[in-house]
Amino acid sequence: MLQPPPARPGMREDEVDTPALLIDLEAFEDNLDRMARLLAPTGARLRPHAKTHKSPVIAQLQMARGAVGQCVQKVAEAEVMAWGGVPDILVSNQVVGPAKLARLAALARIARVAVCADDARQVAAIADAADDAGVRLTVLVEVDVGAGRCGVAPGAEAVTLAQAICRSPHLIFGGLQAYHGNAQHLRTLDERRAAIGGAVDACRMTLEALARAHIPCPVVSGAGTGTFELEAASGVYTEIQAGSYLFMDADYGRNLDGGGAPVSGFRNALFVLSTVMSAPRAQTAVLDAGHKAVAVDSGLPLVWGRPGLRYTGASDEHGQLAVADGNDRPALGEKLRLVPGHCDPTVDRFDWYVGVRGGRVECLWPVAARGAMG
Amino acid sequence: MLQPPPARPGMREDEVDTPALLIDLEAFEDNLDRMARLLAPTGARLRPHAKTHKSPVIAQLQMARGAVGQCVQKVAEAEVMAWGGVPDILVSNQVVGPAKLARLAALARIARVAVCADDARQVAAIADAADDAGVRLTVLVEVDVGAGRCGVAPGAEAVTLAQAICRSPHLIFGGLQAYHGNAQHLRTLDERRAAIGGAVDACRMTLEALARAHIPCPVVSGAGTGTFELEAASGVYTEIQAGSYLFMDADYGRNLDGGGAPVSGFRNALFVLSTVMSAPRAQTAVLDAGHKAVAVDSGLPLVWGRPGLRYTGASDEHGQLAVADGNDRPALGEKLRLVPGHCDPTVDRFDWYVGVRGGRVECLWPVAARGAMG
Repeated sequence: MLQPPPARPGMREDEVDTPALLIDLEAFEDNLDRMARLLAPTGARLRPHAKTHKSPVIAQLQMARGAVGQCVQKVAEAEVMAWGGVPDILVSNQVVGPAKLARLAALARIARVAVCADDARQVAAIADAADDAGVRLTVLVEVDVGAGRCGVAPGAEAVTLAQAICRSPHLIFGGLQAYHGNAQHLRTLDERRAAIGGAVDACRMTLEALARAHIPCPVVSGAGTGTFELEAASGVYTEIQAGSYLFMDADYGRNLDGGGAPVSGFRNALFVLSTVMSAPRAQTAVLDAGHKAVAVDSGLPLVWGRPGLRYTGASDEHGQLAVADGNDRPALGEKLRLVPGHCDPTVDRFDWYVGVRGGRVECLWPVAARGAMG
Repeated sequence: MLQPPPARPGMREDEVDTPALLIDLEAFEDNLDRMARLLAPTGARLRPHAKTHKSPVIAQLQMARGAVGQCVQKVAEAEVMAWGGVPDILVSNQVVGPAKLARLAALARIARVAVCADDARQVAAIADAADDAGVRLTVLVEVDVGAGRCGVAPGAEAVTLAQAICRSPHLIFGGLQAYHGNAQHLRTLDERRAAIGGAVDACRMTLEALARAHIPCPVVSGAGTGTFELEAASGVYTEIQAGSYLFMDADYGRNLDGGGAPVSGFRNALFVLSTVMSAPRAQTAVLDAGHKAVAVDSGLPLVWGRPGLRYTGASDEHGQLAVADGNDRPALGEKLRLVPGHCDPTVDRFDWYVGVRGGRVECLWPVAARGAMG
């Protein structure tokens, strides 16, 4: 269940028990500040995705720099954020079933709560839950802007659903949810620009159709770390849902800028600290962090600051290292930082963040919505 | 952190909140009984791997059917098992660092605790920890029998390490740890037989070398669900460490028997229950269980009992379904059982097992060692 923290404030980093989820606080604060600075001139507001960090502490740090609230994927995440003092929460997703909708409606008494819909039956179910709880819920229409996952078609279908929302006395039409997930990891800027160009066109066409139907649309929400500068500059998107910019990961590290160089700017701020638990042969070593500790759905982790070492295979509790450069062979018991392939699910494996600065543990923060899937 | 349980005893299965980790209790009990029945005539004892189930409740059910104790991969798992009343625990792994070794030695006051080593410095560190705690720890020599991960070479290297263990007044030489992980998912019986034949030869050669050095070897421990019948019949292995037989998964479902048919016998007993949260188009639907809910390191999950549906892609919180047969299209809000690609890491995503029988929830069991990585 809940695991004890692997560190105490004041410890040296090499005293932290492993595997541990480290935040490099200096890089993390740079990322927080950089995002605020990049969005300031665009007029788009930041509604960062708490699915990445799962922590009301981090949500408050984002809001202190201007974020308007948070988005989440799950009611259980919304609960943790609302209970942790986040005043404005968008579930950027469909919420299905009366039990979950009743929980969501209950939250509307302590926070502004919005949710997405892509089906008229769902609009009716949300209205019933709001009615039962004696609250009004804000509902955004999710539009499929290219990801082919959830969402109604842009244009007429979206207008029909918005009209259904507007007709209910228990609901408020909140705008459009228009996230293009597939675009985030397109590797070249040209590919990302083409994909988001299509998403922007789909939103604009839908906004025009809403206007013809005399339905004001206060919000167009979407974008991720891979593309947010495009959405923010579009003049159409009003809210940016990026989350991974906080931490970055190996997969986002493979996105290229217009010149074909790695997109930089945001720094690697999240690491899994691991220990060399076995080093029986010269060309290999084994770490105590396998795929239960570091998510491999978007590729294997990288070994931070050790170009001679490559993480070549993850089993449940072991990570296999290849030692390409014999001079860089790690010692038995040595602790190495791994850059996760994918930050979001890696965070979700842990109960605690260990914040480090200058080689010392500065803070422990709970991953309060760890496992909040319901 | 700890999530509330998604069900109450007595509920119907279709009332369980999702995503939820279901045990089909009838299939699960069949698997427990079948393993006990298969091993009884072999003389090999069962020491099942708690890395799969992470539950003292399940450990007790295994021990009630003759299992001699449990093995675990992590000290944190050993703690949960010892605190939950398991009297005999093998950490089938290296434990590195004085903090972890001190925790392990502390457990030796309430349970029989054994650990593996593949390095003389580690033997010394374990002896120091045992000395400091005023206990004796049992140490097995891990031998690399083909997996190429941890472990010393069979034969002379293993004997040298066993001698180092025997020389310490704080340690007891417990035998050989000889797990061939890579062999478990070789798809044909011939491949598995060849791999385990090599492992048995390596053990036998090491046992002979230990005998020449006058070192009695009480235990040879290893094997997994894919190969245990081979080790159990070898006359060399004395303990079987299989874990996944409890639950099975899609990956083990791809192992073939001698005739080229799927290896059967054990039943699928573990499922992730999920809800159709969006069904915007006829050929597709979206589930509320992505790779945060169901591990994808060994392939995508299967949809149980619905041949017309295929789980084709996992994002963090969404599972994409392809509807091959239009007659089998799932309804919005419908709940579907998924067979995980890999049972162990899927269990580790959840705080609760929901045990079901005859369509009703019969019990809730905590996944007590969920996240126990340290």
